[in-house]
Amino acid sequence: MPATRGLLPRLNELAQIGASEAGITRPLFAKPDFEARKLFVTWAHGSGFALAQDVVGNLFARRPGRRTSERRRPILLGSHLDTVQGGGAYDGAYGVVAALCVLDALDAAGAETEHPIEAVAWAGEEGSRFPLGCLGSGVYSGTNALTEVESLISDDGESFVAARDSSSGLLRGLEPRNVFPVPAAYLELHIEQGPLLEQATETLGVVTAIAGARRLRVQIAGERGHAGTVPMADRKDALCAAAEIVLAMEAAAREIGDCVATVGRLDVEPNETNVIPGGATFRVDLRSVDDARLERLDLVLQSVCDSVAKRRGVTASLTSLERRGAVPMDARLRTIVHAAIVDAGGKAVDVPSGAGHDAMCLAAIAPTAMLFVPSAGGRSHAPNELTTPADLERGLTMLTRATLDVDRALAKDLT
Amino acid sequence: MPATRGLLPRLNELAQIGASEAGITRPLFAKPDFEARKLFVTWAHGSGFALAQDVVGNLFARRPGRRTSERRRPILLGSHLDTVQGGGAYDGAYGVVAALCVLDALDAAGAETEHPIEAVAWAGEEGSRFPLGCLGSGVYSGTNALTEVESLISDDGESFVAARDSSSGLLRGLEPRNVFPVPAAYLELHIEQGPLLEQATETLGVVTAIAGARRLRVQIAGERGHAGTVPMADRKDALCAAAEIVLAMEAAAREIGDCVATVGRLDVEPNETNVIPGGATFRVDLRSVDDARLERLDLVLQSVCDSVAKRRGVTASLTSLERRGAVPMDARLRTIVHAAIVDAGGKAVDVPSGAGHDAMCLAAIAPTAMLFVPSAGGRSHAPNELTTPADLERGLTMLTRATLDVDRALAKDLT
Repeated sequence: MPATRGLLPRLNELAQIGASEAGITRPLFAKPDFEARKLFVTWAHGSGFALAQDVVGNLFARRPGRRTSERRRPILLGSHLDTVQGGGAYDGAYGVVAALCVLDALDAAGAETEHPIEAVAWAGEEGSRFPLGCLGSGVYSGTNALTEVESLISDDGESFVAARDSSSGLLRGLEPRNVFPVPAAYLELHIEQGPLLEQATETLGVVTAIAGARRLRVQIAGERGHAGTVPMADRKDALCAAAEIVLAMEAAAREIGDCVATVGRLDVEPNETNVIPGGATFRVDLRSVDDARLERLDLVLQSVCDSVAKRRGVTASLTSLERRGAVPMDARLRTIVHAAIVDAGGKAVDVPSGAGHDAMCLAAIAPTAMLFVPSAGGRSHAPNELTTPADLERGLTMLTRATLDVDRALAKDLT
Repeated sequence: MPATRGLLPRLNELAQIGASEAGITRPLFAKPDFEARKLFVTWAHGSGFALAQDVVGNLFARRPGRRTSERRRPILLGSHLDTVQGGGAYDGAYGVVAALCVLDALDAAGAETEHPIEAVAWAGEEGSRFPLGCLGSGVYSGTNALTEVESLISDDGESFVAARDSSSGLLRGLEPRNVFPVPAAYLELHIEQGPLLEQATETLGVVTAIAGARRLRVQIAGERGHAGTVPMADRKDALCAAAEIVLAMEAAAREIGDCVATVGRLDVEPNETNVIPGGATFRVDLRSVDDARLERLDLVLQSVCDSVAKRRGVTASLTSLERRGAVPMDARLRTIVHAAIVDAGGKAVDVPSGAGHDAMCLAAIAPTAMLFVPSAGGRSHAPNELTTPADLERGLTMLTRATLDVDRALAKDLT
């Protein structure tokens, strides 16, 4: 058996895949995502763990529990391998690699667990190619129907089914399973992607709740025309209309507070210097741990779209793409995780998660908790994502302890 | 010799090239542009006219004048065959086809002219692929240096030289000439692309002046980050900054009056739903027949970029891409053209041109005039461009008469 590699070398190796000067880009079922999943398999095989993949591309490496426990539901540990365009080395990747390292650490310690423990790499968490975030964990948890996901079309025009069956799709040699077994619990280790933990030192975050989110698409239809000849008063400029809505949503989020509103994507039609834009399509991303504030943002968006469209003589069509409430983490698991950290001499604070995570899907079917390590400058979804090696190792150590503690606590329920 | 085809069938044939549901798209040195130039050659050969192309892709079909006139400078008639993305059937194409039809009409009438008459198709007028409008006529007239044009890179990343040498570049079998002979005069027939002529009936426009224009690129560099985790107060959102500038320029053009400002093209970086935009690049197109108003718009843009950048903690870099003053048409040629229309029982009015045209380059080296026919709804740079067949034929008739009158008037200067 080849020697298993440690956390940092594995993260470094993974960070080469899909890397360019613009950061790391591994959208679901594109070549770099495929290579990353292959690497997961190589590592899991190297450690002698059994592997499974399912029909949406989720990957599982299994370390059996003690012999009498093999029929028990597994405890899942994981995150995702896909990235945004030009992302960093830790968002998702850290949680997956750490999960595999936990299995290795249990092996090295000769630990017997009361449940099988599985390291999982969820497919397509970022929604950066197919228009649905947490795609793999969404299907796994029943949050999204398999048929819904199978009818998705990627931003580059490929159907989910064609992408999955392509040479960058499902891995060969692993019969894809069509069942999604309910786990006993789910733990996810992740970088914070926000600024709170960095202000403390040597402190891990125990997530209280994952913010709710709404994503909407706004399509503005104006009237294209020659940039030199149509008087200002006669224009129905779709980009000007979009610009007003972008700024109105920024102002609304500031005013409402404890929420964020982002237009991250905007496409102009035909997008030529000397043509008055006839169309503009953009996506609005709204988040808050308080569902009432989300609702207020949503109402502002509707009303601004209406008033801008009326005043400018354009149409503004709103389509809801995604909508989820805030998701609290499991109270008991939070307590166990918190205690595990403190018992090991570490520091732990409660933090909310502004970002969505696979954990919010898993929370629908199993007790779920999340651990956060600090992100330098709160940065994420960017090439300069950074967590110090010490924090990365600290997170892994605590995840290992928490896994064992959760394993024992849940086993007591069964006896 | 095959029978020559008339104006409308030729326009229809040309309108098929590069056509889709989204309109007609023939950017310079792309396949449809190549096909359009080949069609020009086919028509010119069919009529027995000598052909020439030059090193930037301009095409010339020549009908000789009377024998004693062959050393005289030619009178050029023409426009361009390239289009914006999703353009219409008349912008440019009409002037080129009509020019060829004038040569045919002179043949049919057995007319002998005092100057050679050339129909010309200028290359790349729209600037819709390489970042320079009036590319072919610009080099021809010395407005732009050949070396400057040869160093251009297209929006899709191809160098001008590679595109010109590609299979969609210069036509084979026509030795490209590297000289740009000064013409005796230049006449361009074009659709108005604005709303003035449509309000009259059976009336042609004689252009007084072509509006001056400035094109600038604005690059905003903010800070990308996770759309769910970075508080509103900590953001440096490049798209929000761009939106403010877009709206400020719209407001400025309305306030200053007799000018237009357009942001037709805007690209967001990385343009993903869940990433706060770290970059936004857009182009501002400013036009006016009054250079002082252009200058005011330009100053507003600089000042708005500065104040938005300062307030938002982003950088906004301005690059001038194009800058030209208003270009008056030749007074004597305007008088001749006006008289030709009225003598033939037509109606003529003086109109400004908000759009730029190859004529403004030619005006730097030769007496130049432009005739306009009406555009339905003032529409242009759009698939639903429309000029009635009666107006199209009327324009051709008047161009033919004006050509003969200009030919005779200029010949008198020489005797």
